Amino acid sequence: MTAPLIDNLQYANWSEKVFRQLRAGRVDAIHVTIAYHEGFREMVLNLEAWNRWFERYPSLIFKGTEAADVTRAQDTGRTAVFFGFQNPSPIEDDIGLVEIVHQLGVRFMQLTYNNQSLLATGCYEDEDTGLTRMGRAVVAEMNRVGLVIDMSHSAERSTLDTIEHSTRPIAITHANPDWWHPALRNKSDQVLRSLTNAGGMLGFSLYPHHLAGGSQCTLSDFCEMIAEAASRYGAENLGIGSDLCQDQPDSIVEWMRTGRWSKEVDYGEGSASAPGFPPMPDWFRDNRDWPNIRDGLRDAGFSRDETEGLLGGNWLRFYAQSFGPA
Amino acid sequence: MTAPLIDNLQYANWSEKVFRQLRAGRVDAIHVTIAYHEGFREMVLNLEAWNRWFERYPSLIFKGTEAADVTRAQDTGRTAVFFGFQNPSPIEDDIGLVEIVHQLGVRFMQLTYNNQSLLATGCYEDEDTGLTRMGRAVVAEMNRVGLVIDMSHSAERSTLDTIEHSTRPIAITHANPDWWHPALRNKSDQVLRSLTNAGGMLGFSLYPHHLAGGSQCTLSDFCEMIAEAASRYGAENLGIGSDLCQDQPDSIVEWMRTGRWSKEVDYGEGSASAPGFPPMPDWFRDNRDWPNIRDGLRDAGFSRDETEGLLGGNWLRFYAQSFGPA
Repeated sequence: MTAPLIDNLQYANWSEKVFRQLRAGRVDAIHVTIAYHEGFREMVLNLEAWNRWFERYPSLIFKGTEAADVTRAQDTGRTAVFFGFQNPSPIEDDIGLVEIVHQLGVRFMQLTYNNQSLLATGCYEDEDTGLTRMGRAVVAEMNRVGLVIDMSHSAERSTLDTIEHSTRPIAITHANPDWWHPALRNKSDQVLRSLTNAGGMLGFSLYPHHLAGGSQCTLSDFCEMIAEAASRYGAENLGIGSDLCQDQPDSIVEWMRTGRWSKEVDYGEGSASAPGFPPMPDWFRDNRDWPNIRDGLRDAGFSRDETEGLLGGNWLRFYAQSFGPA
Repeated sequence: MTAPLIDNLQYANWSEKVFRQLRAGRVDAIHVTIAYHEGFREMVLNLEAWNRWFERYPSLIFKGTEAADVTRAQDTGRTAVFFGFQNPSPIEDDIGLVEIVHQLGVRFMQLTYNNQSLLATGCYEDEDTGLTRMGRAVVAEMNRVGLVIDMSHSAERSTLDTIEHSTRPIAITHANPDWWHPALRNKSDQVLRSLTNAGGMLGFSLYPHHLAGGSQCTLSDFCEMIAEAASRYGAENLGIGSDLCQDQPDSIVEWMRTGRWSKEVDYGEGSASAPGFPPMPDWFRDNRDWPNIRDGLRDAGFSRDETEGLLGGNWLRFYAQSFGPA
């Protein structure tokens, strides 16, 4: 069996068209965001919408909950869809909901989006207080049931605290090193060393605000950055989390940034002059462009095995270690 | 492997004491009620409480979701706990919640408690309008995902409608024939013939208001009633759903009867002079008394195989047919 192709973060405006493009690009598994600011019941409505898609397109997609589902996807020519939250809002103030959402099939949860949460501090806050009391309790519970901690949007100290407090490897599913492109959402060398030393995974983002040069970033620049990261952190701890937000209207990026927490406009990584989704690089417009990434990685000097690991083999190993009870 | 012992309806005030009595009585599986009038989020709180019990008493109990779990319970000397609702209130007005509650492990749902619901009519209403529009849609969805329809508290026409409309066998988990004891909650010969002709299951209740003679009903009277039912409906379609409400305070029977639907007192099967839980018959006080039922069935003339079927083998066959997708 060849290594699978796994994209560990997407948030498309889902449709039959997108599902068919996933198949055209031979994507075996994706981790999709099903909550940004939703409470528990609202998140369940999003699960219900996914159940409808699974019922309607059983030859294209199915719900993934364990590593074996990735292999099943390869065997049956479909895409396994794994669920995650970019904010702990769906568990409200109730630690019992950690196990409930795991039973519903959720496999990743960020401890914060951009703001302070009940659990930790987001990367846009002025002050970073680290893990809260509830944060420490929820990390232990996530470790127990097999819900992966994702710190993609969290602040530095909170992330380091969590790597230390967690008894299992964690993930940064979609971000890049800040030594390549200094952005609030990109990660320090110290965070990435701590993450990967503890067995954690980094997924490289293709969201233009996370790229050196933005939408104009070249494929070779992106892949050379990955080569440098591999030399620092080990290629086996790296994968892709493209953050592809295909076909979304700009109202969605407004929802991501502002939710219901403010009456003011917050431009996040954008600006008043460019408030919407930035255009994707022309070498990664949608899921049909994965062959470009594969070629770019080989051109950057990665072996065939390393390339297959970066494109999914490493995430598969992490899934197998992470999704079951401790 | 000998047949398992399955009680297909209990609602105890759960405690380590009750779990140990289940083991003392060698009960391999129970179906427990986790909602009477709860909305979705309240029902999830009840699931969370059960998750705590499973975490605390792993050597006594575990969550059951498929027939194989009954065998696993036998193999490991524990009791598998299956979940059900006595009212469709947890799915609110949202058909998408049918699959969600099945994904959370729920395996039985009554279409009504005693009153009219969004789906059908309860046995205490003056008028029985049969399945509603949403009722027909929900029956089809329950059939699709493998959530068993339970009509224990439903009215005659609604029950007959549902047996006809359902493409899979349904259950009356806890009731007795009204030719033995005429009570609103007991079932007509026509209902029981239709139910069992369609492959459905009847679980005999030990709740005193459902027994001829009430708390004074004798074991031989109860078992002779079962023998008569077996001659009419086939022993293979019969089991037990004791409705044991052990250690519950009377405030719980008030909640069952009145929920939040009325500001008046409703005595249900009780009365102003006897509003609380009636005492159980002295031959079935708790889960340690199952050997009495086994002896009573043999004394009423059932063969060893028939007795094992009545005490769990028949429910196990029904579980195997019912809990998966259509």
